[in-house]
Amino acid sequence: MSLVVIGTVAFDAIETPFGKTDKIVGGAATYASLAASYFYNKVKIVAVVGDDFPQEEIADLNKHHINTEGLQIKKGEKSFFWSGKYHNDMNSRDTLVTELNVLGDFDPIIPESYQDCEYLMLGNLTPQVQQTVINRLKKRPKLIVMDTMNFWMDIAMDDLLETIKMVDVLTINDAEARQLSGEYSLVKAANKILTMGPKYLIIKKGEHGALLFHEDHIFSAPALPLAEVFDPTGAGDTFAGGFIGYMAKVGTVNFNNMKNAIIFGSALASFCVEKFGTEKIRNLSEEEVSARIQQFVRLSAFEI
Amino acid sequence: MSLVVIGTVAFDAIETPFGKTDKIVGGAATYASLAASYFYNKVKIVAVVGDDFPQEEIADLNKHHINTEGLQIKKGEKSFFWSGKYHNDMNSRDTLVTELNVLGDFDPIIPESYQDCEYLMLGNLTPQVQQTVINRLKKRPKLIVMDTMNFWMDIAMDDLLETIKMVDVLTINDAEARQLSGEYSLVKAANKILTMGPKYLIIKKGEHGALLFHEDHIFSAPALPLAEVFDPTGAGDTFAGGFIGYMAKVGTVNFNNMKNAIIFGSALASFCVEKFGTEKIRNLSEEEVSARIQQFVRLSAFEI
Repeated sequence: MSLVVIGTVAFDAIETPFGKTDKIVGGAATYASLAASYFYNKVKIVAVVGDDFPQEEIADLNKHHINTEGLQIKKGEKSFFWSGKYHNDMNSRDTLVTELNVLGDFDPIIPESYQDCEYLMLGNLTPQVQQTVINRLKKRPKLIVMDTMNFWMDIAMDDLLETIKMVDVLTINDAEARQLSGEYSLVKAANKILTMGPKYLIIKKGEHGALLFHEDHIFSAPALPLAEVFDPTGAGDTFAGGFIGYMAKVGTVNFNNMKNAIIFGSALASFCVEKFGTEKIRNLSEEEVSARIQQFVRLSAFEI
Repeated sequence: MSLVVIGTVAFDAIETPFGKTDKIVGGAATYASLAASYFYNKVKIVAVVGDDFPQEEIADLNKHHINTEGLQIKKGEKSFFWSGKYHNDMNSRDTLVTELNVLGDFDPIIPESYQDCEYLMLGNLTPQVQQTVINRLKKRPKLIVMDTMNFWMDIAMDDLLETIKMVDVLTINDAEARQLSGEYSLVKAANKILTMGPKYLIIKKGEHGALLFHEDHIFSAPALPLAEVFDPTGAGDTFAGGFIGYMAKVGTVNFNNMKNAIIFGSALASFCVEKFGTEKIRNLSEEEVSARIQQFVRLSAFEI
């Protein structure tokens, strides 16, 4: 039994109103696997980097019990690089540089030892590659969670719809839910998307929390109001990783467990944005995580 | 003991993507007092209309046990009239017409029978008039809730700050909280506003719910995701009226009761937007209200 995470492992250079970084380690699979590792100790990565990627960074993932056998290292090639600058409101950003490098022809090879995959996290990547991973698993995982973004809706909608059909949970933000469905109302958007394949839809609303839709049930999760949002990069990936990590831990797929999984994912995402990149989510103690979960409980509890 | 509501009683003409109305009855005090009347049966209005205002509309307020002794009717004058058109996203609107009419020199006279006021709702009006009402009450009410808007921040900030000092609860939206405090982070904005006088701050976020701040406590209330938002006019006033109506009903001012009051206010606001104007909130049964409250409970409950 394991949780396989596919996505980018990459370099980011980030500028926010609070400062800027040189190249630091980022990527959807990095954030998601680190987040999942707090709840589950059999996380396995499928990704690709160049030989410019530091060995000590891989060692650090291994220290979090993340299996990197499926992390391909391409000799003489460079890792994926993204650079972006956030606006003052932290809700929007400009991409300054995107260098695909090794990602250009990424063939996601699944090591034999990953065939025990029960939980599959498809981090944001081309829908084609996400689909290939599903097809290469001999046994269909118990739970497939897929993250994607508006970019693929713009340039690869057919592939995206094909892939969405094959997954259990789709996570997108509110603007993407509207784009994918052509509906402004999120309730109508969700009802439409739930006919496209996924049985569960999570709509991420950033500082406004998240909505989980399943059949005619809706769960509204709060976001923790924060005095400082230092760097939003990776928050969505961290959320998704925490979500599926918690699901793998509890082992039973149902609406109630997903509600809790959203709270656990939100809690880890709330840490993520407190520092640049993955800094904060590399060094959390169990006590810090539990205390944050309790903050979420207090934040939204009422008794009528 | 009573709950006094001050605000506009007026005519609105509304255009939304779903249709348009002729002149219908609106106004902050109308929405707020109707909403409050579902939880408390000693609601009293202070407002002004012209003699163009239909007697049967006043009779309908009375049927909801709303005392209209403080509703001045100005002979030969016309009622306040506002006309607006909502954009497709329903989150923004253009004002087409504003005719102050009787509101231009509104002097809020407090009938002697209103001096038993324990709960005071200051609906959106000039801060000067709101302040006059507080000063004319011989005994300071147990709870003063004030609603206001960006318009007064633009043209009467000093008066506004004077009035804010005198109230217990301030309700504004997120953009207004940012404008009033000069802080982008809502946590920082709230901390600053809580030093300006109010002990409680409610930040209304429309379809994203509401936040209640008090000392270092925060409560995040969800909004009910709706398939159709027909007409958002009056939703904020309905929320405030439901909020203070519930507080008057329970009679004890504390954070826990305010959390519930926000859920009750949100529930009534969720009805308000389902039809044009006050139509929906005039004819709710107890069963409908209870069922809606239960929807809010299910929407946000989780057990960790």
